[in-house]
Amino acid sequence: MEIRLWRELLIPYELAVKELVMKFNQLKKEHKEKDLYSPIEQVTGRVKSINSILEKMQKKNISWDELEEKVEDIAGVRIICQFYEDIEKVAELIRRRSDMQVLEEKDYVTHMKESGYRSYHMIILYATETLNGRKEIRAEIQIRTLAMNFWATIEHSLQYKYKGNMPPHLAKRLSRAADSILQLDAEMSSVRNEVMDAQNSMLHQSNL
Amino acid sequence: MEIRLWRELLIPYELAVKELVMKFNQLKKEHKEKDLYSPIEQVTGRVKSINSILEKMQKKNISWDELEEKVEDIAGVRIICQFYEDIEKVAELIRRRSDMQVLEEKDYVTHMKESGYRSYHMIILYATETLNGRKEIRAEIQIRTLAMNFWATIEHSLQYKYKGNMPPHLAKRLSRAADSILQLDAEMSSVRNEVMDAQNSMLHQSNL
Amino acid sequence: MEIRLWRELLIPYELAVKELVMKFNQLKKEHKEKDLYSPIEQVTGRVKSINSILEKMQKKNISWDELEEKVEDIAGVRIICQFYEDIEKVAELIRRRSDMQVLEEKDYVTHMKESGYRSYHMIILYATETLNGRKEIRAEIQIRTLAMNFWATIEHSLQYKYKGNMPPHLAKRLSRAADSILQLDAEMSSVRNEVMDAQNSMLHQSNL
Amino acid sequence: MEIRLWRELLIPYELAVKELVMKFNQLKKEHKEKDLYSPIEQVTGRVKSINSILEKMQKKNISWDELEEKVEDIAGVRIICQFYEDIEKVAELIRRRSDMQVLEEKDYVTHMKESGYRSYHMIILYATETLNGRKEIRAEIQIRTLAMNFWATIEHSLQYKYKGNMPPHLAKRLSRAADSILQLDAEMSSVRNEVMDAQNSMLHQSNL
Repeated sequence: MEIRLWRELLIPYELAVKELVMKFNQLKKEHKEKDLYSPIEQVTGRVKSINSILEKMQKKNISWDELEEKVEDIAGVRIICQFYEDIEKVAELIRRRSDMQVLEEKDYVTHMKESGYRSYHMIILYATETLNGRKEIRAEIQIRTLAMNFWATIEHSLQYKYKGNMPPHLAKRLSRAADSILQLDAEMSSVRNEVMDAQNSMLHQSNL
Repeated sequence: MEIRLWRELLIPYELAVKELVMKFNQLKKEHKEKDLYSPIEQVTGRVKSINSILEKMQKKNISWDELEEKVEDIAGVRIICQFYEDIEKVAELIRRRSDMQVLEEKDYVTHMKESGYRSYHMIILYATETLNGRKEIRAEIQIRTLAMNFWATIEHSLQYKYKGNMPPHLAKRLSRAADSILQLDAEMSSVRNEVMDAQNSMLHQSNL
Repeated sequence: MEIRLWRELLIPYELAVKELVMKFNQLKKEHKEKDLYSPIEQVTGRVKSINSILEKMQKKNISWDELEEKVEDIAGVRIICQFYEDIEKVAELIRRRSDMQVLEEKDYVTHMKESGYRSYHMIILYATETLNGRKEIRAEIQIRTLAMNFWATIEHSLQYKYKGNMPPHLAKRLSRAADSILQLDAEMSSVRNEVMDAQNSMLHQSNL
Repeated sequence: MEIRLWRELLIPYELAVKELVMKFNQLKKEHKEKDLYSPIEQVTGRVKSINSILEKMQKKNISWDELEEKVEDIAGVRIICQFYEDIEKVAELIRRRSDMQVLEEKDYVTHMKESGYRSYHMIILYATETLNGRKEIRAEIQIRTLAMNFWATIEHSLQYKYKGNMPPHLAKRLSRAADSILQLDAEMSSVRNEVMDAQNSMLHQSNL
């Protein structure tokens, strides 16, 4: 496929990423303006590079006709949360929206990948409007904690160095680090819950 | 109304302005990427200040219940074009979109206001999504040429100095300047049409 | 020159454009926060495309060694003003700054180009900081009114269609349009001065 | 101090934060364009709120005259790194720059605060240019890893709930979590160093 056609293909995906990042950032802002705790801490987005799309098509044996249906992460949005429990809250916010339709959910949080990767993935259908009219596209939303993101950022940068062929003993060390991260997230959530219980009990006493 | 309630009221309008400005800018970019002339040269937006909303409510005798229906420019977007003919092209692009519904059009381009003001206004209905769910709001889109914008920018800054009470002889001079601007726009369009006729005729000859 | 070297060459120019646009926008904001009239209405910037640099080198017979010294508009910033008199105010603000040094000024406002083009050009020396350390580069600042910008935007888009070979009778019509624009700017400034004299006299009377 | 004077005071600080964030982001981009590993992963910035400035003045007994000299974090920039070793690389990049002067360095990385807080702080002197001319201001740059940032983000949000009076047993749990984070950072760095040694040895063998 020549570059001009690629560009045309990617136009609605670029638009979708920009709109989605803006909408989730606005949601964070709306929480703050209403003095509510925001389960969203950070939002980023990207359109998959042409090279990565081609690699995925080859690896998964996807034909040109199936491209837009089967490469579901051409448009990708990442939402970072502070606490483990926020992940489900964000997922629920997304399920309730009327401007996107959830097609599939993949729970790599409770079902960690072998590598140690943890994230909650949602594939959505999202309508964009281009010069050629309305076009519905697929997008992938990844939801994870700051700690899971720390692990994933570093794992990605190391995988990149090994071009996917990381020696088993290093992979094992990374996977053990992922366990520590899970414990950290659990500990942080537990401290937080204790903080909130204390607050509620103080509130309760002051109301007696 | 207290400040917290105002903020809550304005949340979907801020969101709408951000989304609309982004969408029209993307339309400009899409023209360029497809090597098409873009009828959109510049896009800006703003949410009306609380003071201006209050003034309009008083002046037009609008009650709190009617606020969101009758103050139609709480969310405002301005699209600037190079040529007179582009205005209608932009209006048509808006009418054809499926993500906004045109409620009303006011043609101050062919029917200039007494002050000399020229612009094409469209009132649209636009769906936003907040923490409280889907909410449809009104927004005003103003479409005008660079030359009309030149006049309007300066008239606005002078009206501001006089707080709306400009002496009649100055108002008359501004209104005469508006006529010169209309002639300029006409002359520029005429030069442009001649350029395009010449191009087409060259193209025609080279195809013979 | 290969693309990687071009990119490396352009890094400090991109940085300079970003910094300069931000600084002049901040100057506009500072005027507003201090309740002063801002002579700056709009700021835009761009890095010259590789193609345009190559064309200029060929046309002006510039060697690779002279590139950075003689192509003075690789980094370009444009400042748009409301009124004719604002141009000199902006130029003076630039001359007084300690973070850039004016190398040359070209007054195409009082000395219009043959085409009808009007703008005030300043060539500055500006220090940027890259991974390789401090680097001083040249940048061009163009200052013009909204009306001059209207003319220049349209002239540029028509020149582009003719690839620089506009027929003389069209060029003449454009040049006549430039005269009308000069008169418009003069009329607008005169209205404004009358407004300000009236204000001052009112202020004077209220102080008696 | 009234609000208008505060605004005027903060103008150069806002400008400095915008410039610094842009400059460090550009540094990240420059690494990528030159195909170098970037020690900078993320950059954020903020101007301290008026309330927080007042609190600090009261707590540290700072008079109005000393405000700009002693409240050193009115302008604050945060640089997030992937790996522990990147912190020193970023600090060295800052020390070598000619557009900022390092006044002081506080190493809370090797000398953790009692709370468990880890970050490398640098106080710099930075020149800005306002309508009143050149003005040198102080700014604080915080450098930390993704993992340290994870801890600090959560600790800050819990401190906020307790308004600074966290019960000792919770503080102890947070401090223990900080130890785990230090071990995680060390483990990740060690994996990474092994990866790089392996790469170098492969490179060496292929050169024999």
